[in-house]
Amino acid sequence: MTDKTPLGTADHSETEFEHAKKIYEERLESSILRAYDLFPAPKDTPEWQVPDQLPLDVIPLFQSLVAPSDMEIVSLDGIDLITKLKDGSLNCVHVIGCFIRAAITAHKLVNCLTEVLPDLALKTAKQLDAERDSHEKYALYGLPISLKELISLSGLSCHAQNSYHIDRVVSRDSTLVSCLYSSGAIPYVRTNGPQILMSGESHSPLHGFTLNPHNTVLSSGGSSSGEGALISIGVSKLGLGTDIGGSVREPASFCGIYSLRPTFGRLSETGVDMMMAGNESIRSVCGPMTSDLRLIEAYMKDMGSKEVWRIDPSVDRWVWRTLDYGHMKKLRVGYCIDDGFVKAFPPIQKGILKLVEQLKGSAFEGMEVELTLYHPPSIATANKLLDAFYFPDGCERIKNHFYRFKEPITPQTQDILDGAREYTFEELWKMHQQRDEFRMDFHQDFTSKFDVVIYPVNNSVAPVFHTSKNLMYCGIWNLMDYPAVVVPTGAKVCDFSYEKTTEFRSELEKLCWKPWTENGADIYKNAPVCVQIVAPRWEDELAVNVAKWVDHKVNKKHWSE
Amino acid sequence: MTDKTPLGTADHSETEFEHAKKIYEERLESSILRAYDLFPAPKDTPEWQVPDQLPLDVIPLFQSLVAPSDMEIVSLDGIDLITKLKDGSLNCVHVIGCFIRAAITAHKLVNCLTEVLPDLALKTAKQLDAERDSHEKYALYGLPISLKELISLSGLSCHAQNSYHIDRVVSRDSTLVSCLYSSGAIPYVRTNGPQILMSGESHSPLHGFTLNPHNTVLSSGGSSSGEGALISIGVSKLGLGTDIGGSVREPASFCGIYSLRPTFGRLSETGVDMMMAGNESIRSVCGPMTSDLRLIEAYMKDMGSKEVWRIDPSVDRWVWRTLDYGHMKKLRVGYCIDDGFVKAFPPIQKGILKLVEQLKGSAFEGMEVELTLYHPPSIATANKLLDAFYFPDGCERIKNHFYRFKEPITPQTQDILDGAREYTFEELWKMHQQRDEFRMDFHQDFTSKFDVVIYPVNNSVAPVFHTSKNLMYCGIWNLMDYPAVVVPTGAKVCDFSYEKTTEFRSELEKLCWKPWTENGADIYKNAPVCVQIVAPRWEDELAVNVAKWVDHKVNKKHWSE
Repeated sequence: MTDKTPLGTADHSETEFEHAKKIYEERLESSILRAYDLFPAPKDTPEWQVPDQLPLDVIPLFQSLVAPSDMEIVSLDGIDLITKLKDGSLNCVHVIGCFIRAAITAHKLVNCLTEVLPDLALKTAKQLDAERDSHEKYALYGLPISLKELISLSGLSCHAQNSYHIDRVVSRDSTLVSCLYSSGAIPYVRTNGPQILMSGESHSPLHGFTLNPHNTVLSSGGSSSGEGALISIGVSKLGLGTDIGGSVREPASFCGIYSLRPTFGRLSETGVDMMMAGNESIRSVCGPMTSDLRLIEAYMKDMGSKEVWRIDPSVDRWVWRTLDYGHMKKLRVGYCIDDGFVKAFPPIQKGILKLVEQLKGSAFEGMEVELTLYHPPSIATANKLLDAFYFPDGCERIKNHFYRFKEPITPQTQDILDGAREYTFEELWKMHQQRDEFRMDFHQDFTSKFDVVIYPVNNSVAPVFHTSKNLMYCGIWNLMDYPAVVVPTGAKVCDFSYEKTTEFRSELEKLCWKPWTENGADIYKNAPVCVQIVAPRWEDELAVNVAKWVDHKVNKKHWSE
Repeated sequence: MTDKTPLGTADHSETEFEHAKKIYEERLESSILRAYDLFPAPKDTPEWQVPDQLPLDVIPLFQSLVAPSDMEIVSLDGIDLITKLKDGSLNCVHVIGCFIRAAITAHKLVNCLTEVLPDLALKTAKQLDAERDSHEKYALYGLPISLKELISLSGLSCHAQNSYHIDRVVSRDSTLVSCLYSSGAIPYVRTNGPQILMSGESHSPLHGFTLNPHNTVLSSGGSSSGEGALISIGVSKLGLGTDIGGSVREPASFCGIYSLRPTFGRLSETGVDMMMAGNESIRSVCGPMTSDLRLIEAYMKDMGSKEVWRIDPSVDRWVWRTLDYGHMKKLRVGYCIDDGFVKAFPPIQKGILKLVEQLKGSAFEGMEVELTLYHPPSIATANKLLDAFYFPDGCERIKNHFYRFKEPITPQTQDILDGAREYTFEELWKMHQQRDEFRMDFHQDFTSKFDVVIYPVNNSVAPVFHTSKNLMYCGIWNLMDYPAVVVPTGAKVCDFSYEKTTEFRSELEKLCWKPWTENGADIYKNAPVCVQIVAPRWEDELAVNVAKWVDHKVNKKHWSE
């Protein structure tokens, strides 16, 4: 569970970064030991050691290493788990123990955790068990929930993958966590992400690489890297991440699970730390990630019932709406395989075209579905705007911290530093105005043609480490503040055959395609193909409902037609 | 109607500012001539000239100068006017003519207009008359509406009180204006404001001073200066302004009318120009101003029914809610006469204490009303944040334009330039984080104690020109993004007697009070005393409903209990 590609300096004196890294490693190690103390392994736990060489697909190995009695609990889906906790066939303390042990096992294989929360989880679970008679007031009664490390928990550190936060202990829970407690959910682990949490990959100098459980040569994605890995390996049912350029959607897509990037203002960001905190040109949003799409709906419905705006003035006034389609004659669905900026890799193109074939002729809520190719306008313009908005200070803040703490720089971060330039207020404000004009034009184009759009999540499936170069398949929806739900298409890279692609429209497109053209499909074996279902701002409910319909069609899950 | 305190340079060659000023004066003059062409004066129009010396209270003079046949129409209140237009007892072309003529007369007395819109108004009115059979689809059928100049109208200039916008003609209507057309309202005049629209007074080098109709020695307030004057003199029934630090509330308060600063995101700002456009540390909002509080509710209800978010992605998803008070045991009302930063002038303190006496013992919607003194926390901190947020570039943008165009600088603008300092991104982003923490603490304090608060609108009533120094009675609610409704208390400065105040807690407080301590109450004779009814973010409906209740109690208007 340590950094598999050590980045420490050769110098024998300890830098501040090295000091921070040691502290965080010790914190994680001691939290694991404490977890085993509080939640001793059951008798049927197999003896094992981390193998020198991980298999490509680590999921079967994981399943063989968890005690069967734990696996029985952990493999329940989230909704069934809540039902059993509510009806008393399971108790919260027992369940949370199974999840904590399984999460530690997962971590030893794919390096997904930064900290285990055994004391907090035990205390919360005991309280909930004592309150089982009033379980009706808890929508998520007893559900174990994993949290991306940047989400503040009272009394704990929160470094957000920055060594300079070494001394910081936060004094109050984030609003999100307060809401989870009031829903009966149990935070039990905190999860890993890439350096400064501004990468679609999963490489952190503080906590190492998080691996993709479907293919351990590949990244689990970022920046909610640990959530993607922990959920897809089969432990967490529901986790919370954040997304400013795809950070809940890319790990979900790369790991073959579900996630929602909601409209800004629905879920509070209060007490969620970020490297670029205070920079508001583009806003991060929190979002749920899960192996069971029904939990996204259950979670959002619950959050929409809490009137969070009464305690947190950053949250909008909203409820999760039950949609009435009476005013619609048909559902206008766009699909995209090429955004005109960097076309999607062949498995994504093929996966989406196959999905469209599967959807053809089906009705949605009794309505005809019209499927039409979508060519989004002006992604290059959107890319220029986003490039400015993420780091308008030319990365000065980041560089200062790296310099002070002698923190090693990952290749993904180096790309950011190399591409950054500093703007004046005047330049930035003009770009804000351009952004608003862009939004108006893009919105009117979208809504005149479509109700929802099926869209790639990245030009790549789960990437080979250090090859991600483009986030615009996600970033465009951050710029537009559109809700987007990630859904697996059921296809994997190895399901299709491929011809060589040699024509590119730009140097950037060629560069983004390099790992595919050089390695071919084999290296991506097992990588899942997922899509985003995107709807206009505030139409989160429509995006989720269409995602459920797609999920039922291709994954034959839970949903009735 | 020209600048009564000429600011032009002594140089004989024409500066770019002088050129701009000449063009705008000619534009206004020719629009007035065109208006008289299209809407000739009725036979009962009195002969008159602008007197050399205006009376203190200009309203009776105004009423004597408007043709009685026009006055009969213009003096209807807004709701009755719409009823008569809908039932056919009046027609739109006739009504808009009465309003245009009366507005020009008002302008000649208090200098409230920048442009008359005779062609647009006639065309719109004719279309509406032709559609009278389908008037049901128009909530504001035939209602003349005045617009602060910064609101874009297709094909017209939009200078927002900046000489550097001389060559700009906008190509599309602002979203607000599109909505007005779809509601059957008729834009007919555009109204004046102070330089760069960042002052609570009404002095513009381009268009001169706008005078307060109740007391022509005083300012009508800013930055929606012309709206305040035009509505309070008795012409416009409904006008639209904008508010980033009190700009719909101060002119409403100083002129003794009503206005609403809604929660951000309800009314679109698309196509609303501002000097500091693109600076998003603190956001401007549009808001209605009126002589009839019922029109605020009618306007907001109508805007909430349009699903504007479908065409304009900057607008939130909302409807105007009908409130149910079933969950409330009592209405907790705070009242404030001193924010701890700069205490309110004696007439405001006395006006509010009198209002509280009048409200005591009354029920609101059948509920007990609890009236308690409110001491807002940390206004000095809020003031520091706002000072940084309005001009984080140290006014570089403004200075550059003034320098290039040789625009004279008003004393109010000079105060801004003198107080400004430039921030780095890093400093500004830290202040954004402080702002969010401030909001959380302030919100929890407010909501734990009160449902609504009765609050001064400024430490001063309508100010003597060049004496405004403090906007925090409004600014705090911009910082908090709380909705606030301005309501006249029915009291005027001359209703009370006063003792001398000599004790001040700070140099700023002493400075803000200087015009009161030096001049005494006499200079403020006739100045109305108004209050804000403030509710937490998204509780616009509650603020309006409580304002209706207060209005009924003290002004004996329209409302049933």
